[in-house]
Amino acid sequence: MSEFVGGLVIREIGADEFARAWPIFRTVIAAGDSYSYPPDLSEQQACALWTTAPSRCFLAERDGVVVGCYMLRPNQPGLGDHVANCGYMVTPSARGQGIAGKMCEHSLAEARRAGFAAMQFNFVVASNAGAIKLWQRNGFSILCTVPGAFRHATRGLTDIHIMYRTL
Amino acid sequence: MSEFVGGLVIREIGADEFARAWPIFRTVIAAGDSYSYPPDLSEQQACALWTTAPSRCFLAERDGVVVGCYMLRPNQPGLGDHVANCGYMVTPSARGQGIAGKMCEHSLAEARRAGFAAMQFNFVVASNAGAIKLWQRNGFSILCTVPGAFRHATRGLTDIHIMYRTL
Repeated sequence: MSEFVGGLVIREIGADEFARAWPIFRTVIAAGDSYSYPPDLSEQQACALWTTAPSRCFLAERDGVVVGCYMLRPNQPGLGDHVANCGYMVTPSARGQGIAGKMCEHSLAEARRAGFAAMQFNFVVASNAGAIKLWQRNGFSILCTVPGAFRHATRGLTDIHIMYRTL
Repeated sequence: MSEFVGGLVIREIGADEFARAWPIFRTVIAAGDSYSYPPDLSEQQACALWTTAPSRCFLAERDGVVVGCYMLRPNQPGLGDHVANCGYMVTPSARGQGIAGKMCEHSLAEARRAGFAAMQFNFVVASNAGAIKLWQRNGFSILCTVPGAFRHATRGLTDIHIMYRTL
């Protein structure tokens, strides 16, 4: 499925195209300020995590340039697989341009289409105030906060939020 | 590591001994009332989930009979791997005898020894009142409740709790 969302082309990719997402993925996790992935995760490991079923990977392109990517998957296996989970990444030079919001809207539509009943974020770093506001504008609420669950590269132990919305 | 805890021998096992845990694992997930694992998960898949590093599997035996098993792992990879996660299973015929509590105590000691700073349960089914009380007696608090996140075999959509304690 490929579609224009506010000037972006957002489309699903497989492992064969993950190399296009990898520069963003690598940059985002190397910063150590938003994801728990080891900052030295390999491209092969990242590709497996984001493109191996039931995980699905989506790429956001503007004028043929990759500006973001996201992953959609069930948050639990089996009897909990009606709740989705997503992770979004935006290339640093394209931040503040609404790309994460567009990817979020896209992911909510994809999740509904796939039959999910709700979406849960397990690990929203509390210092990412912009992301938290964005998810709230997209209908998510903070269910709870886990104290010090993230070792932030510069802030040290940092709280994380679990966020949720129905679909 | 092997030790007696109130008449039980609780010890870590590897994949080579997982067949001893499997009858309990299979029975517990087949009931569809406490774990999100697909009720038809294979022994091979279960073994991989519970014994592949960084997951560690422990067996509880009483007079040489396996009465329970549990899994200890980091709840997140990389920058979140200082928070542990556990799952416990008790054979139905041995319930109400304090075995889950003994395994929980054992897992807290093991988690401390491994350097974890806290423990988080992601998916405590709200209808398992006995389990919730037991975790609370062992120092866990309910951080939040995710509505209808579990498709209980007999109750249908059922809330789950996220529980947490420091170590």
